[in-house]
Formats: sequence, C-alpha cells, structure tokens
Amino acid sequence: MSKNQNNEKFPGYSKDVIDILEKFLVKIWSIIEIKTKTTEYKGILLPRSKFSEPGFIEIKLDNGYNIGVKLSKDIEIKILGKREGKYNVPEKSFPINKKLPNIKLFGTGGTVACRLDYTTGAVIPAFTPGELFSAVPELANICNLDTEIVFEILSENMKPSSWQKLAEKVEKEANSGIDGIIIGHGTDTMSFTSAALSFMLKDLSIPVVLVGSQRSSDRPSSDSALNLINAATVAAKSDLAEVVVCMLGSSSHKYGLIHRGTLVRKMHTSYRHTFRTIGNIPLGKVENGKITMFQNDYHKRIKSETKTLLKFEEKIGLVYSYPGMTNDIINFYVDKEYRGIVLAGTGLGHTSTYIFDSIKRAIEEGIIILMVTQCLNGFVGMDVYSTGRNLTQLGVIPGKNLLPEVAYVKLGWVLGQTQNPDEIKSLLLKNIAGEFLEREIPISFNYNADEL
Amino acid sequence: MSKNQNNEKFPGYSKDVIDILEKFLVKIWSIIEIKTKTTEYKGILLPRSKFSEPGFIEIKLDNGYNIGVKLSKDIEIKILGKREGKYNVPEKSFPINKKLPNIKLFGTGGTVACRLDYTTGAVIPAFTPGELFSAVPELANICNLDTEIVFEILSENMKPSSWQKLAEKVEKEANSGIDGIIIGHGTDTMSFTSAALSFMLKDLSIPVVLVGSQRSSDRPSSDSALNLINAATVAAKSDLAEVVVCMLGSSSHKYGLIHRGTLVRKMHTSYRHTFRTIGNIPLGKVENGKITMFQNDYHKRIKSETKTLLKFEEKIGLVYSYPGMTNDIINFYVDKEYRGIVLAGTGLGHTSTYIFDSIKRAIEEGIIILMVTQCLNGFVGMDVYSTGRNLTQLGVIPGKNLLPEVAYVKLGWVLGQTQNPDEIKSLLLKNIAGEFLEREIPISFNYNADEL
Repeated sequence: MSKNQNNEKFPGYSKDVIDILEKFLVKIWSIIEIKTKTTEYKGILLPRSKFSEPGFIEIKLDNGYNIGVKLSKDIEIKILGKREGKYNVPEKSFPINKKLPNIKLFGTGGTVACRLDYTTGAVIPAFTPGELFSAVPELANICNLDTEIVFEILSENMKPSSWQKLAEKVEKEANSGIDGIIIGHGTDTMSFTSAALSFMLKDLSIPVVLVGSQRSSDRPSSDSALNLINAATVAAKSDLAEVVVCMLGSSSHKYGLIHRGTLVRKMHTSYRHTFRTIGNIPLGKVENGKITMFQNDYHKRIKSETKTLLKFEEKIGLVYSYPGMTNDIINFYVDKEYRGIVLAGTGLGHTSTYIFDSIKRAIEEGIIILMVTQCLNGFVGMDVYSTGRNLTQLGVIPGKNLLPEVAYVKLGWVLGQTQNPDEIKSLLLKNIAGEFLEREIPISFNYNADEL
Repeated sequence: MSKNQNNEKFPGYSKDVIDILEKFLVKIWSIIEIKTKTTEYKGILLPRSKFSEPGFIEIKLDNGYNIGVKLSKDIEIKILGKREGKYNVPEKSFPINKKLPNIKLFGTGGTVACRLDYTTGAVIPAFTPGELFSAVPELANICNLDTEIVFEILSENMKPSSWQKLAEKVEKEANSGIDGIIIGHGTDTMSFTSAALSFMLKDLSIPVVLVGSQRSSDRPSSDSALNLINAATVAAKSDLAEVVVCMLGSSSHKYGLIHRGTLVRKMHTSYRHTFRTIGNIPLGKVENGKITMFQNDYHKRIKSETKTLLKFEEKIGLVYSYPGMTNDIINFYVDKEYRGIVLAGTGLGHTSTYIFDSIKRAIEEGIIILMVTQCLNGFVGMDVYSTGRNLTQLGVIPGKNLLPEVAYVKLGWVLGQTQNPDEIKSLLLKNIAGEFLEREIPISFNYNADEL
C-alpha cells in the first residue's frame, strides 16, 4: 500500500487512490457515487489529513458521518455534481491581550481541534492558534493561546510512552510560567491518559485539562467548540492544580463538567455527555464562562516546581473475571513473566475459586495482583465473604474504589517506581492523586447530570 | 484441612476447629473474643451451613457482618457471655390456598433464603417452604410455594454447566404446569445466569424470576424479605414469560424493578439497588404487591411447551482492551485453540492498531471475535472511524449494544448451537432473547431509579 502524498490536488491521499480518482476525473469536493461489488455510497469527496490511513477514499455521507471506502480493483466512481469548497480557511492571527492568562494547547490527535469548514462541511485538522481563532473566536476572550502538536494519533493507539511524553511537555510548560494547559485528546482512552498524567506529574502548579469531542466539528450536533471554550475557561480561570477532564456534562449540553483525572470514565459510546465521575459527583462545572466548584477538596494553584515520575512497567495486564474462566488465563501471565495483573472481579472483589490455583502460583512467583470490581461503583470488600478473605490470604491486594482502568495505570506506574514488594503494596494503597475516596457519595450512583 | 462434620453441637464446623472450640469450652451462641498474633475479634459464635468452608471460626460482629477467623496454632478464645439461641426455629407448614398460583423456588446458594433468626441474629440457610413461611409469612398471601435446592454454591463459582442444570429444571417445572419460577441466586454473577437462561430456554411459557440479596437477612438493612416478596409477586401475578431479575430498584427501597435478563448488570458492590437495566428503562416495577409495567414489548404468558437449547462452547474468552495491550494476549487464545473471543473495546468498538496482527491471525484460524464496548452504554459503531472499519474488514463482528457479559454468554451459546461460520454470524446478529435494542432510550443513561 502506498503512502499518502504531499499532493495539492488530493491532499492526504495515497498514490494508488490518486490514480483512480484521476481516472474517473473526480476532484476534491465533487459529489460522487462509489460502487464496489458489495457496496454503494454517495457523498462529497473530502480532503484528508496527512495522518489518515492510506488506501481509502474518504467521503462525507448525507448523515454527516465521514466514511472511508477501501480501494479495490472493481471500484467505479460516478460524478453527480460539485460543491464549491475551499481547502484553506482564512487564518487570522490570534489577538494577544496582556490582561488574559496564557494557555498552551497540546494536540495529540483528537478531533476536538478540527477546523469548522461551514462551506463544505468537511473536517480538516485546524491547529495553529490563528486557525483555532477563526473556528472558535470566543477563545480570544478567555486567554492567549499557543498550540503545539505533540503527536497525531488515534487515542486508541496511545501507549504508556505517549503518556510519558505528554507529562514531560506539561512539566516543561508548567515550569516556564504558563497559566494553564489544555490537552486535546480522543475520547476513547482519555481517562487512561488523565489517570496516567495524574500519577506521573508531582507538585503540579497549574490546571491540566483534557478535552475532546464526541462528534466532529462539521456535524450540526458537534460538541467541539463548546468543549474547547469550557476547557479554556477551566485552564485559564480555575484555581485547580490537578489533571482533569472537561467535557459536556448533561443531555441539555448547557455546561461542561470538571472530572478528577483518576475518578472519571467514558460511559457511553456516542453521547456527548459521555464522561462520568464514578463514586463522587464531579469537582465542578463550567457554564457561560463561569466556573462553579461543587467541592473544595482539590489541589489549588500553587507556586511550585512541577516534577515528573515517569517510569512505567509495561508488563502488566487487565483481566475481567467471569463464570467459566479457567486457570490458563492467569497462568499465561505467569508464563510470559508479567509483573502485575489488575483483576476486575465480580461484586465485592471475587473470582471463582476454580482459578485460585493460578492466582496462588502467580503471587508465589512475585506477580502483584490488584483486585478491583467490575461493578465499577462501590468499594471492594474482601473481608465480607469467604472468597474475598481467601483471596487476600493468597496475597491479592484489595483496590478499594479504584476503577479498573485507573488501577491498571496505577499498577504500571507503581511497579515503575519501585521493585520492593513492601513499597509496592504501600504505594498501591496510598492515595497518590485523589484516586481513593474516603467514602462514597451515594448520589454519585444515581446523579442526573441535568440537575447538577 | 479436615472436612465439616455432621456435629450436633457445632454444626458446619470441621474437626480441627471443633477441637479448639471444645478446648476453650465455647458453645454455639457464646459471646467470645478471639485473639491471634495479628488480630482480635469480638462477637457471637455462629452455627454454620454444611457448605461453609472448613477451617474457620465464624462469628457475628457488632456491626452485623459475619466474619470467618482462620484457625491458627496461636489462637486464643475467651468467653465473654452467652446469649440464648436456638438452632431450630419453629417450622410451620406452608398454608395451601387453591385460589393462589403455584410457585417453585429453586435455590442455588445465594443468601436470599437465609433464615431470619431474630433471637440470635444468626444467618442460617432456611429453605423448606415451612421455614420460608416462618421467616417471610407474607409469601403465603401471594402463592403456594414449593422449594428445591438445585445446588448450594457461591455465585462466583457458577459455571456453564450450572446454567444448563438450572435451565433443565425450569423446563421440567414449566411443562408440569407451575405458574411461575423463582431462582434464588447470589448477586455477583446473577446477570450472567439470567442471560444464559434467556438464551437456553425457548418458548418459555411462564415468568422465571432471579432474585438475591445484597445484605444477609440478619442485618437490619437486609433486602432479603422484600426482594423475595417482590419476586414472588412477579412470578405469581405478572403476565411475563421471560427470564428477569427482580431486585430493589431505588435508594428508598420502596419497590423492586423488573429487569430483562439480557439487559441487566450489577453496577454497585454493596448498594441494595445495585442492578440496572442498561440502554433502556426496566420492564416494570413491583410495589406493595402491585406490578406496573413500563413497557409493553415483552413476551407474555402463553400455553406453549418450554424447550431448552443447552449446548455451550466453553472455549471462549472475554477480553477488555487497554492502551499498551500487546499481541501476545490474543495470540494466547489462538495458541490455546479457543473458539471465540468477546473483545470489549474502547468507545465505538476500537482497539489499538498495534494488536491488529493477532486479531487477523485469530480470525484466519477460525476464531470468532465479537466486539462490544467497555463504555457499557450505547451501540458499537464500527463504520464511523478507520479503526472500526479496519476491524470489521479483518472480520470482527460488531456486537451492537450487547453488554460484555451478555456477549460472552451469547457467544458461548451460539458456538454451542452451530459450527457453520455463516450461521454463527447470523445467530450472533439475530435478536434471540431481547438482547438487542432497536434504539437506545436516552433516559436510560441518566435515569434516577428513585423517580421511576
């Protein structure tokens, strides 16, 4: 498969695709019909990001979704019409106002910072401060914005090394006197990254706000602009010095909620108000430029030198238990010399006793097993039933209220910090970044985000 | 470790424990203090079920929890006092009223049917109809009750063979003219069992109601009696012919909610209103003996012969994806000749592209991969982003709105029904037992159970 070309007429397309497009006399923004043996699509041919996957023809369907049609030999394209489109939207320079806070926006590849091209409805990554100002002019009333693309990957491809690189970038900016940081991030793994940054950044002096978008900015229902405005408000004006996620909070989409980075989870595939704080209500909300904190128990802005603790042990697993699970699952991790496993057990932190043999073996061989609950809500309670007591006697460590994803990140981070078994256990059970709740707030289980 | 003895003075205890208890002149119901090198507990010595784990001394603490103290050589017991206790509560015979429906209660080992011994506060399994009548006399106003212990295991130890045995029992009773069935079940894996029975039972003619208890019946906050009364009401009076879960639905605990067996999940470790229908509101509710259905789209009681489709392929796995996941996880399942994997991906149904190699290999070797979302809420949408499209091109099957646990049960069941790849795919995508939603009900994501 050929790589994407730096081709002016067909930006972001690979040579094999360009050959076909030229053969059918198609241009960017043409309204076309694509037929293969098995499928048929109608839509507008789109320019692509240079980071797009080669070998696909990308069109915008009538329903607003973009779809990539894989190139095949039997493909046929018919031109149905043409819409006026322009690939370059005007870029104004971002106005500087010395009275406003200075904010840095790091891009990682999420769609939040896509350009709003109303003429064509196309999604094109917009990322210079000037492009963002053109797309979301409200930003200039909130802050002075500088931007930097750290990497441009799909969030499902984030890796521990991506977290480390981001943490280093944050450290450098925070210690250079910036007032707040926004990180544009795909929503899929945003809560893994927010947890990782929470553990990796020590003595953080400013807010670090992760923000994304559930619908790309070309769709009428997009949350891009509003999320970006809310995140900029929190980065510029809040007194937080924590890693938080700021995304639309209610089905009415009137405000954004501010979630602690170690207590948040993506709970819906497509809704814009997909993120929920688990076990507590969110830290606060932001609406029309005004921040309202629901809680007072958070780290406040402070003059401190932000540091990093970056090391991460990648030989760790995340395993959900289920009826019928057999010893060979855990044995696999032992055989492959993994160093730790997060077990998301049932209920208060249980697994079938049929897999006790492999759990025993794993712990005897020095593997750390951290138990959390697949219920997501509530604390594990491994002293209530015999199964829980037996598991702790085998050496399984109860993970309190940790979400499975947060436990996974914390376990890798802890195993990166120390090799000493006692220190590992002690660090795992220590509240490092607000991941442990002293007690659960009952309303958190039922809260209706529309009424916060 | 010695086995539990059929000992009248120390029911449910193993010989090694009895020796120690006799040495310290302790009796059942004595108020004692147990000291070991590391711990110290005060409470009432309890009789145990014969199914309890040997090697433990079980006491009831002041907070209402029962705890098992493991026997050790350095153990010391001091008698602090004695409470009058009786091990046999009076058993009245369950009154028969020919006007009331006949209900069968199957026991599997959950704590729902424990005897309420108010004198001592002890938990002792109560299971004959007469014992249940003594404990929960309201049952006699609802139905004529017969009971049968199918097995007595912790719900985390349920296996596919347990589901098969239960399905056969239900089939037999349903075809013998019983009016409804209650299954007492531990809450940990109740939703796995409800899904399994939903798929395994065909043309079900009566309601099958799974019920459990989040707090044992000796605690003041117990939900045992109320859940049992609600479940009996649904089994006796509802016009349902489906497998449902009926458990307390709101934090006020005024009513029980009726959840479809294929759309329900345990969402809290300890709350009594732990079960939630995902993607929809519950089927209905039951309060003070009155059933209110919220929906009309369910199978109604019908004169039909209930059949079973029991076969289940056990060589299947349930894997949640996460950043940093490597190919060796999926490769393990291929190497071990598993036949199917449920992948709970991120967002709309994504995994890191770094594990595409192993996914490709698995599918080439005939392994079925069914994609669901770890968000739990919403549908997978694998045509929206390139990662999803690539995964479907590799042959991954999108699991729509299936919960990961339900997908696991359905995959095993489908692979038990047919070996034909086209039939497997077609059955996986067919709505067999109400597991697929035509569309999601938005309120389901936010519903406050107190207001249903």
